[in-house]
Amino acid sequence: MRENTWKTAITSIAPNEIRLRGYRIDELMGRIDFGQALYLLLRGELPDEKVGRLVTAILVSSVDHGVTPPSVLGARNAASTGAPLNACVAAGVLAINRLHGGAIEDCARSLTEIVRRADAWGCPVADAADQTLGEYKQQKVRIAGFGHRVHTTDPRTARLFELAADAGVSGRYVEAARAVEAWFAKQGKPLPINVDGAIGAVLCELGFEPEVMNGFFILARTAGLIAHAREEMTRERPMRKIDQDAAEYDGPPPRTARS
Amino acid sequence: MRENTWKTAITSIAPNEIRLRGYRIDELMGRIDFGQALYLLLRGELPDEKVGRLVTAILVSSVDHGVTPPSVLGARNAASTGAPLNACVAAGVLAINRLHGGAIEDCARSLTEIVRRADAWGCPVADAADQTLGEYKQQKVRIAGFGHRVHTTDPRTARLFELAADAGVSGRYVEAARAVEAWFAKQGKPLPINVDGAIGAVLCELGFEPEVMNGFFILARTAGLIAHAREEMTRERPMRKIDQDAAEYDGPPPRTARS
Amino acid sequence: MRENTWKTAITSIAPNEIRLRGYRIDELMGRIDFGQALYLLLRGELPDEKVGRLVTAILVSSVDHGVTPPSVLGARNAASTGAPLNACVAAGVLAINRLHGGAIEDCARSLTEIVRRADAWGCPVADAADQTLGEYKQQKVRIAGFGHRVHTTDPRTARLFELAADAGVSGRYVEAARAVEAWFAKQGKPLPINVDGAIGAVLCELGFEPEVMNGFFILARTAGLIAHAREEMTRERPMRKIDQDAAEYDGPPPRTARS
Amino acid sequence: MRENTWKTAITSIAPNEIRLRGYRIDELMGRIDFGQALYLLLRGELPDEKVGRLVTAILVSSVDHGVTPPSVLGARNAASTGAPLNACVAAGVLAINRLHGGAIEDCARSLTEIVRRADAWGCPVADAADQTLGEYKQQKVRIAGFGHRVHTTDPRTARLFELAADAGVSGRYVEAARAVEAWFAKQGKPLPINVDGAIGAVLCELGFEPEVMNGFFILARTAGLIAHAREEMTRERPMRKIDQDAAEYDGPPPRTARS
Repeated sequence: MRENTWKTAITSIAPNEIRLRGYRIDELMGRIDFGQALYLLLRGELPDEKVGRLVTAILVSSVDHGVTPPSVLGARNAASTGAPLNACVAAGVLAINRLHGGAIEDCARSLTEIVRRADAWGCPVADAADQTLGEYKQQKVRIAGFGHRVHTTDPRTARLFELAADAGVSGRYVEAARAVEAWFAKQGKPLPINVDGAIGAVLCELGFEPEVMNGFFILARTAGLIAHAREEMTRERPMRKIDQDAAEYDGPPPRTARS
Repeated sequence: MRENTWKTAITSIAPNEIRLRGYRIDELMGRIDFGQALYLLLRGELPDEKVGRLVTAILVSSVDHGVTPPSVLGARNAASTGAPLNACVAAGVLAINRLHGGAIEDCARSLTEIVRRADAWGCPVADAADQTLGEYKQQKVRIAGFGHRVHTTDPRTARLFELAADAGVSGRYVEAARAVEAWFAKQGKPLPINVDGAIGAVLCELGFEPEVMNGFFILARTAGLIAHAREEMTRERPMRKIDQDAAEYDGPPPRTARS
Repeated sequence: MRENTWKTAITSIAPNEIRLRGYRIDELMGRIDFGQALYLLLRGELPDEKVGRLVTAILVSSVDHGVTPPSVLGARNAASTGAPLNACVAAGVLAINRLHGGAIEDCARSLTEIVRRADAWGCPVADAADQTLGEYKQQKVRIAGFGHRVHTTDPRTARLFELAADAGVSGRYVEAARAVEAWFAKQGKPLPINVDGAIGAVLCELGFEPEVMNGFFILARTAGLIAHAREEMTRERPMRKIDQDAAEYDGPPPRTARS
Repeated sequence: MRENTWKTAITSIAPNEIRLRGYRIDELMGRIDFGQALYLLLRGELPDEKVGRLVTAILVSSVDHGVTPPSVLGARNAASTGAPLNACVAAGVLAINRLHGGAIEDCARSLTEIVRRADAWGCPVADAADQTLGEYKQQKVRIAGFGHRVHTTDPRTARLFELAADAGVSGRYVEAARAVEAWFAKQGKPLPINVDGAIGAVLCELGFEPEVMNGFFILARTAGLIAHAREEMTRERPMRKIDQDAAEYDGPPPRTARS
């Protein structure tokens, strides 16, 4: 026996047989969507289709938000110097931290605390939220996941909560998020739930631990980083000054996917 | 007007409205799978469902291959020192290069050359393949995307080609890949198409340019990197020696997803 | 005036004139060593030659420690897949975290606390050290910078403290480090000051803030990472399994630099 | 014997004894400067002091060039999102590629070709340069290492060549660089040797292989990246828009290091 034996529960490899958490990968191909694959990798079990669709929707919600986020600037900045695609992605991912993408995890921790208090105190979630937000205010702590520098109502939030309700996973964390939003409204300075806050609430509902939540954003945004790095390589001259406020959209005009 | 104006065709941002390639992102959420989202980002158009399912299957095929690939070792190595999740992902992605993941692009270039020659010479793809492989042999060039150190028949290949046929996109690049496989068999040293070669062929069928093909692998494997980094953080002691041959699988036993 | 004006105190650029912290860079070239340059960049002033020599010695002490540190494995792992030199360095640097390299900063914080207490309590540093270590023991907190998995007496520590004494910067932080070492000896389990602890103590003496101390290790080790990445590229076959315990040294035999 | 035995010639580790290329590291500390340490790591031998001083001068010449280089923007961009110091450095290093920093290696390759031709043709280096540059012009190839977007005469070049002459290593590669400069002057569009070109020439004189030359720039600039990342963390608000043209220097006024 080797001295350094260790365990992994993710994937087993045998000749001509690759199994993810017990399932043959070729059997999963064409049968599950990417949200289900991610859920399976992180949780060890295949979610049902509605939950898979919800996780996929979380990923779709975060694939891109235009040219201004630091992750996109990092990827384009590297691309502009001649970096290969993987280095552009890595440079972009290194700019996903507490202040960019990290609101998902931070919001989830606050919502978890609110729900925990509601349980401990035997009170409605809304009361626990009011109490918690009051304390935050006194401590001058800002709760993450509310308000957006561009959007007064984040269109992704309503849609995500709708899909969560469809999947039967809209419970007390979503309730807590809404209670926080209501608290801000009562204070006279409305700060609606943004997409990060909504994702944090839904991932809590699904039982994910906060420590992996940043991973959903990293994975989703990697798709956007690839698109931006490639656009930089093909449309712009190398070593240009990238002025993030000077970009103009010249892609397809508004259209609808509804059939 | 600003001096440094530049153009982007990926995403437009307006207050309360985010559009990917013209489509409202909240409308896409819950409606498309992640393969469709990636296709839309890279190509500017929504693929039909079968093509979307095919792209998703490409992603699912590459989410993970156990603990030995260099990208996983890179991510676990960083995790073992206390790195945050995004740094683990970045360290892993930096190990995805020509020799790991890069076979997709390299194989696609060879298949493109074979198909181009068949067109130029007005001959069957199989003849162009034989001629090209003969030249490679003389030049001691190894074609990428064939053979695997573990699998004698890569189970992902057959499934991917099946889904490509379903989607109506199994044409001359897949034919070229099979011709290369047949050429190796005729030489008496069978080297079956591996998953990288199969992905390269299918992405050629879908009209992707070779320069972005590595991106499919980077994006897919990022899901696995997140799972491995998190497993390293939670199951292993820090700063351990990671012996890639000493891992034992202790996850769920073999099971089936078929309903 | 531009709206986003911001300030930098590091370097001024004018046509044909580059000034670091006010000094012409061409005037500095050939006149200062690299330790002085780093000190100048971080602190804004040129240190005298003895301090410069001390900072350089810190850098020299940490350039390399063979093939087993995670940073080196990260760089070699990337190199093995065909990564360019800068990606190898980045992958290695991403494995320099709290548990590898980070002991410098953590030790510095503990020594700072001990010295602060000695001041506040008006007692000898040794007494403050005993008290602090006693508390750590009760809280099961491990102080960083003491003990080494290979060295029972770290040869770099004695030399660094000697150079610090020469430079006239061996004061209460070095005293605190030695008091901690003495405390461990009194406990019957000797844990000598390792190079990280020694660097932490000396950087405290020099007045650096803990937040940049990791930077000294990152910068120094980058030199080693470049050497290892290049050795991997030139001496090893690609995509090999890197067994960190199976490396044998075959470089120059022991020799001395003394004239 | 272990199956995967491999060799390294860089560092040997034994209890209480660390040897770089045969020299005890504690003996080197305080005795050599960082340029000598880097030379020793990459070449296996200690250079004499003049060469060591020359290598150190190369490093000092490249530690920083203000806020506009992509590597600095990459590091500041990551810092702005809350990244730890090592991630800022990695993000910056990932922007050092062929178009930023890479001119050193590219110029070295051209100078090597010119010197090789002078040898092969038995002609003066200047004639080989004229012939080579003429061919480049016809092929519309741009030689790297000449001209600078800010400096009409790069002050670092003259100083570096002066130090190379002092160290007795100003030979045919420096001659070739000057011949290229003269060729541009004859064409009526002066493109003086910039610091990258000068470093490339001097590293050729010292016998370094082009493949490691980028490493000198990566290592040197890492010092600057640390300073910039830290300045961003301490002086700027998080998630700001970094307008590289809007920075104003507010550090120490012009001063001299001459004693």
